Amino acid sequence: MEKQTLGEKTAQMLLEMIQKEGFGPGDKLPTEAELVESLGVGRNTVREALRILMSRNIVTIRQGSGTFISEKKGVVDDPLGFSMMEDRRRLTEDLIQVRLMLEPQLAALAAQNAAEEDLQKLEQIKEELEDLIRQRKDYSLKDSQFHEQIANCSHNQIMTNLVPVITEGVRMFAVSVQETEYEQTLSSHRRIFEAIRERRGEDAKMEMYFHLMYNSNRYRAETEP
Amino acid sequence: MEKQTLGEKTAQMLLEMIQKEGFGPGDKLPTEAELVESLGVGRNTVREALRILMSRNIVTIRQGSGTFISEKKGVVDDPLGFSMMEDRRRLTEDLIQVRLMLEPQLAALAAQNAAEEDLQKLEQIKEELEDLIRQRKDYSLKDSQFHEQIANCSHNQIMTNLVPVITEGVRMFAVSVQETEYEQTLSSHRRIFEAIRERRGEDAKMEMYFHLMYNSNRYRAETEP
Repeated sequence: MEKQTLGEKTAQMLLEMIQKEGFGPGDKLPTEAELVESLGVGRNTVREALRILMSRNIVTIRQGSGTFISEKKGVVDDPLGFSMMEDRRRLTEDLIQVRLMLEPQLAALAAQNAAEEDLQKLEQIKEELEDLIRQRKDYSLKDSQFHEQIANCSHNQIMTNLVPVITEGVRMFAVSVQETEYEQTLSSHRRIFEAIRERRGEDAKMEMYFHLMYNSNRYRAETEP
Repeated sequence: MEKQTLGEKTAQMLLEMIQKEGFGPGDKLPTEAELVESLGVGRNTVREALRILMSRNIVTIRQGSGTFISEKKGVVDDPLGFSMMEDRRRLTEDLIQVRLMLEPQLAALAAQNAAEEDLQKLEQIKEELEDLIRQRKDYSLKDSQFHEQIANCSHNQIMTNLVPVITEGVRMFAVSVQETEYEQTLSSHRRIFEAIRERRGEDAKMEMYFHLMYNSNRYRAETEP
């Protein structure tokens, strides 16, 4: 069995304190000395607990100014262990499959649940994406943001945290296709956006299916013998 | 900005070494002294790097015997930050929604992709679950295992890592219904299992929808005014 150290137990206590006292992103935590006092453990244990919470992206330490609640809301880097999956081609295919399972439904939910300001932000990202495409610049980060904003539009907070893990996984670990499909990307994102804005959930779902399948088929055409 | 410490950089180097050398779960890592030598950093930095990889569930330290690759395959505890979501009722509804989006499709994939030994394991879990239900014992852990094994049957390794996060989230954080539905649970799981075993993907999907919606409706009936 993998046993829990005193530092891990203290990290757990600290996390409970953070929740109970309602700390939010950006809030400053008590000093090390105060935590030694309130948690009843030694300074080294408090430091280890803070390091654990830092590595879980729950807190962040800013040199010289103290410890703060992280903006990353406890979503760690590579939380699903993609970096441990050695077969990159299989990982890519699995990522594509997960996106096909999730994102069309998510687009339909977004069409149903998006608030006006969510749609404005989605439109802004879509326009920035179109600008990058017209200038033939790398748009992969903006593309991820577009899909992440659709997750935000769904108002399901688990999806808000999960979709960036998937899109980040695609950017970091997936085997990408050689040719960039500028025009297809531009028109697909525009049609997805318009369907969501006009509350046409089924159209949003189908456009998302088409967009993801188009890319999936390009990937297959390049990698299969 | 949140800056990277020397320990974090070293953790990254160590992770790359683990991947390059093909270490798998349970394998023993080189000693601290050997890592000091091969990574060209001090002992304290190696220790910090190991602590970081430990907190990401990539390695585990067994007192007295050394450092090993963790069986958790780099999937961290609470990777999607459920513990930071304060509204438990909303979290429960979001979890139910995510399960409804994922698990019916996953049951269909399982019916298509499960190998013979996957099905045997699923059957065994189903039987253990039925035993617990007949004895009117707490079956929540076995129930989670059943859903996790369906993810394994799908042969999508992201789902293999993601579904336990969701089912664990339900067990740890969700507001549960008061009454236990023994007979309904027993017959639902049996029908899901039989559809998967007989490669009836569409039936497996529909049975999973029914099972999840049944529980979702019970939850709503209890919590809505």
